[in-house]
Amino acid sequence: MNRVIQYLSENKQENHEQLVKFLKIPSVSTDSTYKNDVKKAADFVADYLKDAGFKQVEVQETNGHPIVFAEWLEAGDQAPTVLFYGHYDVQPAEPLNEWKSEPFDPEIRGNRIYARGASDDKGQVFMHLAVLKAFLQTTGKLPVNVKVCIEGEEEIGSANLYKILREQKEKYQADFAVISDSGMVANDQPTILYGLKGFTGLEFTVKGPDNDLHSGMYGGAIRNPAMAMAHILTSMKNEEEVVLVKGFYDGVEDLTDEERDLIEHAPSEDFAASTGAKETVSEKGYTAKEHTMARPTLEVNGLYSGYQGEGTKTIIPATATTKLTCRLVPGQDPTTVQDLLVEHIERNTPKGVTVTIKKESLSAKAYRVDPSHPLIQKAAESFQETFDKEVVYVRMGGSIPVVEWLDDIYKIPVVLLGFGTPDDRLHSPNESFPLEHFEKGMQTIANYYNKVGKLG
Amino acid sequence: MNRVIQYLSENKQENHEQLVKFLKIPSVSTDSTYKNDVKKAADFVADYLKDAGFKQVEVQETNGHPIVFAEWLEAGDQAPTVLFYGHYDVQPAEPLNEWKSEPFDPEIRGNRIYARGASDDKGQVFMHLAVLKAFLQTTGKLPVNVKVCIEGEEEIGSANLYKILREQKEKYQADFAVISDSGMVANDQPTILYGLKGFTGLEFTVKGPDNDLHSGMYGGAIRNPAMAMAHILTSMKNEEEVVLVKGFYDGVEDLTDEERDLIEHAPSEDFAASTGAKETVSEKGYTAKEHTMARPTLEVNGLYSGYQGEGTKTIIPATATTKLTCRLVPGQDPTTVQDLLVEHIERNTPKGVTVTIKKESLSAKAYRVDPSHPLIQKAAESFQETFDKEVVYVRMGGSIPVVEWLDDIYKIPVVLLGFGTPDDRLHSPNESFPLEHFEKGMQTIANYYNKVGKLG
Repeated sequence: MNRVIQYLSENKQENHEQLVKFLKIPSVSTDSTYKNDVKKAADFVADYLKDAGFKQVEVQETNGHPIVFAEWLEAGDQAPTVLFYGHYDVQPAEPLNEWKSEPFDPEIRGNRIYARGASDDKGQVFMHLAVLKAFLQTTGKLPVNVKVCIEGEEEIGSANLYKILREQKEKYQADFAVISDSGMVANDQPTILYGLKGFTGLEFTVKGPDNDLHSGMYGGAIRNPAMAMAHILTSMKNEEEVVLVKGFYDGVEDLTDEERDLIEHAPSEDFAASTGAKETVSEKGYTAKEHTMARPTLEVNGLYSGYQGEGTKTIIPATATTKLTCRLVPGQDPTTVQDLLVEHIERNTPKGVTVTIKKESLSAKAYRVDPSHPLIQKAAESFQETFDKEVVYVRMGGSIPVVEWLDDIYKIPVVLLGFGTPDDRLHSPNESFPLEHFEKGMQTIANYYNKVGKLG
Repeated sequence: MNRVIQYLSENKQENHEQLVKFLKIPSVSTDSTYKNDVKKAADFVADYLKDAGFKQVEVQETNGHPIVFAEWLEAGDQAPTVLFYGHYDVQPAEPLNEWKSEPFDPEIRGNRIYARGASDDKGQVFMHLAVLKAFLQTTGKLPVNVKVCIEGEEEIGSANLYKILREQKEKYQADFAVISDSGMVANDQPTILYGLKGFTGLEFTVKGPDNDLHSGMYGGAIRNPAMAMAHILTSMKNEEEVVLVKGFYDGVEDLTDEERDLIEHAPSEDFAASTGAKETVSEKGYTAKEHTMARPTLEVNGLYSGYQGEGTKTIIPATATTKLTCRLVPGQDPTTVQDLLVEHIERNTPKGVTVTIKKESLSAKAYRVDPSHPLIQKAAESFQETFDKEVVYVRMGGSIPVVEWLDDIYKIPVVLLGFGTPDDRLHSPNESFPLEHFEKGMQTIANYYNKVGKLG
């Protein structure tokens, strides 16, 4: 271990340079203009792994962006096999005028490195690559058997990865997975993320007349689709933040005392202060922390109807549309919940209008691993030793579909070693990553692989 | 009278040509590109009146488009004075690609003349001009004292007319007003419009957090502004189409049996069939006809929040906005109702969000004249004699602010002699006006002025 740490220290400058090189590639997966850059980023990862000492490295073509696959399986049968997953694609940088430096020309300010992808996910992926290289270049081996899977479509739904994970189980099979694509609850506060919420959604459109109508001539004879939509929405969730859709909470387990304890000990966020909202509001019977971490939600993401311009236009709109999504917890099945939403909307559509529903195809089950699992405990130890701080255990309100797929298809624990921070500004202008976490992150990862290798 | 009718008949061709000339001028008041054309249209009206025999003709400058004012007051003290109001400005023609002929190059198809303004309002204004000319050119006099007020901002709210009507009462004062800027309930079905609805409105915006938030991270801690807006809306109107705003119906008189009779005898429209809505829906306790004609309404004209593009975006929107307007009936004061709406919204704003409200400055009281009023009865007779059909008495769901101002400022009856039809397509592409109504309309108007002159 010491040799590995020393190697990382000696190659600090080199690692920075390689990171910058990686961040400079505008690997924006959603925009076909950048298709070649996305490929370049894949090649960067593949070349790095070859250079690090991996013999089996492949840029696997898909119907979309390629998956970089590599394996080193010479640790012996006693050692577990880890599947390291990450992604080399990034979010678009827009709006560009809000960046203080160029999104694809990394800049260091205040001990943070600013670039699109610095935190999500290239900075964190690169830490693993550098650690793997450090092991191979010093000891000539890795403490665990390693399969590497770095894809290029995480920001656009990983459709091809999903197919490949289902169809090529033998290739990707491992004993557990490690992912560094999440964050700590606060700067310098190592966090064990032991749960993620699932996800489902839909869009529904209420239609009244064929065209917008003069509200004077027809007001009083025609059901207003925007108002009808409001009635449907308020039938789905009440002002106490309880979802009213029949069957929505079926299968959802009550929070145990242990769980409530873990949640209470997780750091608190003053949600109102940090977001600018007037006050925190949560489901009747639950604190905001409990609700964000461990209770299902239903949120309107957007809605629109009729006239949206300046001033007044006295119409009854022809249609009204809502986009909504739900975050799910263990016990809920996304397809079942989606069907319940559809039934509810159809059952609660007022007379005089019709509804069409577009189901969102992307979905995910919730994920939860027992915090006391040995693989989780070793992660906690690794964090604690490097950061010299006790970890906090946290369930996240967001979803990471690939975690759900690995759980569902491979039935393996997924260890989320997140090194991001709340200030990283994922998906926003001026994304950054703290250099301190970059350094400590590599040590933590090295420490972790080492410990896990000894688990036997 | 016979001489007048004969003159109109002999000058049929001339009248068509002049109408076409009038319609060709693109007097689009809302678009400053057309400022000169708007002036041209004013000049057309002024020149026509001078040519007809009016000595007092003036193109009165305002802070916006001019008002054409003319008067002929030599009918004697016994004869009443009528204020004839109309407008020479028109709606924009867009969307242009939906017109079958050029909007400002009148075309006759199927015995209708197609052009922007053919019905609203130039075709109807011109009929009055032609009748006044016919009287002056044959008998050398008019049967009533006449003041003419043709403005150029009706389509944009008549702000300058409002000022001038308030400030120059002596100039515009008359015993009653006549307006031809409305329609019959059906082709060839003379209609006495004896009531109009008033109007008020506002826009309200619900604000939650300062920015859109990740719905996974914050769902459960932050009140969703779009959902909060839905709760506010459903607190304002229930699914039985009853407005729930406290005080909204104060002062609204019950419909008398007489009124219900009048309404029942008015022609019915199959609202669902004509609009494409699934079925007709109206206020509990009232038919759709009663509700559209004689009950107040509250309608959402537009609303928007959050993400409206393709696919999914998992956010809690920062804000949500609704634009709504109310149509009022006699007994309701627009300012009072607007204040009640504001109070209601503020009182029903859920915890966790704030609301800002933008009051709509345009407003109007409802208007109602007794159908048995002699001036109304003479209009009915004139219609009946020319169209050889009994009139129907109708209250309209729409508003005409100038009618309300004349009622409110001058306290005079306003006679709405409407010659439009439901197929005229006001404010839409392919606006048209039936030539048969053009001919019969002029006869009706001539007949009417003649009768009214004898009222003494």
